[in-house]
Amino acid sequence: MVSRIKDQAFNHSRVMEYMHHLADENGPRLAASPGYQRAAQWAVDTLSKDGIESARIEKFGDFGRSWTWSGISVQMIEPQATTLNAVPLAWSSGTDGLITAPVVFAPLWENPRDTAQTDLVKLAERIDAYKNQYAGKLKDKIVLLSGKRPFKLPSEPETQRWSADDLNGMMSARDPRTEDLYEWPLLKVPFKTADRWLMYEMIPAEIQSDYSDRTARLMNRLIEFLNKEQVAAVAMTNTEGNGAVIFAESFGSNLASGPIPAAAVQLMPEHYNRLVRLVQRKVPVSLSIKVDATFPELNAKGKNVIADLPGGSKRREVVMMGAHLDSWHGGTGATDNAAGVAVVMEAMRILKTLDLELDRTVRLGLWDAEEVGHLGSRAYVKEHLGDPRTMKLKSAHETFSVYFNIDTGSGKTRGILTQGNDMVKPIFIELMKPFEEHGISAAVPRNDWGTDHQAFDAVGLPSFNLLQDQLDYWSHTHHSNVDTVDHIVPQDLMVSAAFMASLVYHAAIRDELMPREPLPPPLPKPQPLPEILQD
Amino acid sequence: MVSRIKDQAFNHSRVMEYMHHLADENGPRLAASPGYQRAAQWAVDTLSKDGIESARIEKFGDFGRSWTWSGISVQMIEPQATTLNAVPLAWSSGTDGLITAPVVFAPLWENPRDTAQTDLVKLAERIDAYKNQYAGKLKDKIVLLSGKRPFKLPSEPETQRWSADDLNGMMSARDPRTEDLYEWPLLKVPFKTADRWLMYEMIPAEIQSDYSDRTARLMNRLIEFLNKEQVAAVAMTNTEGNGAVIFAESFGSNLASGPIPAAAVQLMPEHYNRLVRLVQRKVPVSLSIKVDATFPELNAKGKNVIADLPGGSKRREVVMMGAHLDSWHGGTGATDNAAGVAVVMEAMRILKTLDLELDRTVRLGLWDAEEVGHLGSRAYVKEHLGDPRTMKLKSAHETFSVYFNIDTGSGKTRGILTQGNDMVKPIFIELMKPFEEHGISAAVPRNDWGTDHQAFDAVGLPSFNLLQDQLDYWSHTHHSNVDTVDHIVPQDLMVSAAFMASLVYHAAIRDELMPREPLPPPLPKPQPLPEILQD
Repeated sequence: MVSRIKDQAFNHSRVMEYMHHLADENGPRLAASPGYQRAAQWAVDTLSKDGIESARIEKFGDFGRSWTWSGISVQMIEPQATTLNAVPLAWSSGTDGLITAPVVFAPLWENPRDTAQTDLVKLAERIDAYKNQYAGKLKDKIVLLSGKRPFKLPSEPETQRWSADDLNGMMSARDPRTEDLYEWPLLKVPFKTADRWLMYEMIPAEIQSDYSDRTARLMNRLIEFLNKEQVAAVAMTNTEGNGAVIFAESFGSNLASGPIPAAAVQLMPEHYNRLVRLVQRKVPVSLSIKVDATFPELNAKGKNVIADLPGGSKRREVVMMGAHLDSWHGGTGATDNAAGVAVVMEAMRILKTLDLELDRTVRLGLWDAEEVGHLGSRAYVKEHLGDPRTMKLKSAHETFSVYFNIDTGSGKTRGILTQGNDMVKPIFIELMKPFEEHGISAAVPRNDWGTDHQAFDAVGLPSFNLLQDQLDYWSHTHHSNVDTVDHIVPQDLMVSAAFMASLVYHAAIRDELMPREPLPPPLPKPQPLPEILQD
Repeated sequence: MVSRIKDQAFNHSRVMEYMHHLADENGPRLAASPGYQRAAQWAVDTLSKDGIESARIEKFGDFGRSWTWSGISVQMIEPQATTLNAVPLAWSSGTDGLITAPVVFAPLWENPRDTAQTDLVKLAERIDAYKNQYAGKLKDKIVLLSGKRPFKLPSEPETQRWSADDLNGMMSARDPRTEDLYEWPLLKVPFKTADRWLMYEMIPAEIQSDYSDRTARLMNRLIEFLNKEQVAAVAMTNTEGNGAVIFAESFGSNLASGPIPAAAVQLMPEHYNRLVRLVQRKVPVSLSIKVDATFPELNAKGKNVIADLPGGSKRREVVMMGAHLDSWHGGTGATDNAAGVAVVMEAMRILKTLDLELDRTVRLGLWDAEEVGHLGSRAYVKEHLGDPRTMKLKSAHETFSVYFNIDTGSGKTRGILTQGNDMVKPIFIELMKPFEEHGISAAVPRNDWGTDHQAFDAVGLPSFNLLQDQLDYWSHTHHSNVDTVDHIVPQDLMVSAAFMASLVYHAAIRDELMPREPLPPPLPKPQPLPEILQD
């Protein structure tokens, strides 16, 4: 059976065709944007054409604003006339034509990516202090809002594959629940618990966290200040990478209630730093900025794509696999995460094409708004499986076997992170054996986090993210303007698709559901925030 | 004395101030462009202010067209509205407003950088064949003129410093004159001879070469075809690097006689490749392009900057150091070669500040148009020292001691390439001793080529390029849009400046002129070109 799966995956592959439609033709796919809508409809149509008739869009929640951009021009006017490379930041305004204004350097905003351990209280204090310093000085100015990006010339290879030693090291790692405490030094609970708190917005006051919801509050506070000061536009740069690449996320909120900032642009660090150096040497700098960005919808729904291959004798039991369909907007979302979508769609196609007899139902989930807080997978779990806050569970929770997720770029699958569930380790080792020749062998006793399996994990369901080679995901493509099909390794996707197909197939025909850990308790009530962080 | 030089270089450094003016404020400095003119005048003014009163501009030759750009916008209209990153190619037209046109893929031009061993005859045949294929199909189209850029994800570090082993290996290399034959397999002469032929346009017909003049003829031929076909614009991409960075040189000629192409833009490879993939899958693609580029002068002169520190007892004898002041135009020319200019200007400043007693005159040369064929240094040598074609020499040839050049980016100096002159090896080893603690130690018995010392070498004068750590020069900054001050390592420039100052100081006070190799013969007459390469 595995041979037949591999034959489909290696000799009849459609992953690159999927990549073309997802990334080149319809990307980027920012949640709720027109690109996302097109890609979601294309996925439903393609699955349907492949005979998976149940393919459908499931709407959820109140996502809020859809936002899209169609063009950007950032032009240095003085001291030199030249063009600067930039990407608009999501959910900021368009410019309504060309604006020209002098530049001031007011580094009010430290991007939280650089401050994973930053005390949010300190960040809040910093913003308050700067507000006093800059009030009245920013009107009609283009404000350089982030610090200069310090460079390190890259002395390590920027493309990484795991060696056998790396994998062995990971497999013999310490108990993840001990290790994870290290990550959150002030929060004396296991990572998983902390993560549930964070994801569900019930964050104890003492935690030092860069988590999006808390920083979003501070960002909103800063935006309100900038709006009051009537800045012309703001510019920022990366806090990661080694130059040339632009990493661009958001400045502003998808929520209908959030303040909308003036045009906010993310510059290539070489271009941003030049502006800062000039200003710091008292050379007058002015820019012209034009951003074509719009909010096509103000109260958009979220849209997951769901599709089933019906099971036989145990059709009420569900084995699920998924990947997020949304992306950031600077590139085409090829490695994050059209790659994962191509893999799971291909796995579905393979199972359907081979017409395999399944005991359990195999379900595909293509998630919306992972980049905005895992909204799609969380909505799905809450709707169908249970509420992690209260741990009130739906009946489908009982018959749910396992969820497999893929979301780390184009790199070949090398194993599975067991999420602290020791019982699955021998099962996974067995399932990986036919793929050892392709380098898939590691059952790694660690938690993974930051993607959609967490929503399932939060209600105590077996849910696992695949371990992949990193390639240039972290150095180049993750949330960047070069997240394009060029950075895809087709052979890697083919191997991952074969493995994913085999994994869900075998999970669907094994005797038992995937073994579960004990259910987590309901989440405690949130503690009050320190005063400076309260709205 | 070396201690006093190091104290100036390390504790009173001005290299980064020079970098600011050369790159951030006045860069880029394309030969004959307004940026170049400003930078040349700034250099004269700065040297004068530092008390080097002889600083002057020496005009030369008929450079031809000055060209400059002030803005570029490349916008995908369909299938998606988005902005593409691009740099205009030098000496191509501006667009006179916005042009919108469908895209066709006609890979008529293989950038010669990828075809160092390409038979130019084959390239000419290729262009002729494509001309037949595409004639009549390109009118009012935006033509994708280069092949898709194949990517290799970088598995080696992109920043390199020489290890002690590397340097030892280079120092014990084979006889360079044997080794160099390997580089030019069809030309059974030493590299140096071949290089003189190439530089002075007397190229035997059988050579397989990517040398600029030959490819320029083919480029002109292609441009004439494209102009006849009335293309709307052309787009190309890199043939080097690993993505994100745009390497941009020219499409068109500085010579007043060359044809001027339509707007020609170099796209970031990720953006270019996406266009090619879409077109190849029959997805209609159209672009809007706006290039603000002008020819401020049609018959510009070249302009070298020359400055002297007068010698004493042997003032007619000259020790010279230099670096090219011009750059390409996509970045600010920081590593190529504001870095070298900052080093030699700083070395001049140090010698002047310390008021050292010099026997010989120390002369600085900041060369124009190195990037366009070493025009500045060649003009200087022909005017003052001798003609390499005829080997008719000027009287100053006799009293010229040595020329030191620096032109490989920001990387720290690690040694000197002896250019096949074995007599200088022990001299250089002695002069490097006080800098061993900074990692400068290698007298490497190889030829270096591709920069301004060649003009001096061609008339048999001792002339040497410094060996530098490569850092990210070849992977990122060389002729690219990220050639900015961010990629400069200040400490490296400081060490290079101290060493250069010490080197020329000691060359200026040693008993003898630097030992010379026997004079090369006059160059033979060029052999006729194969018919297909003739104009």
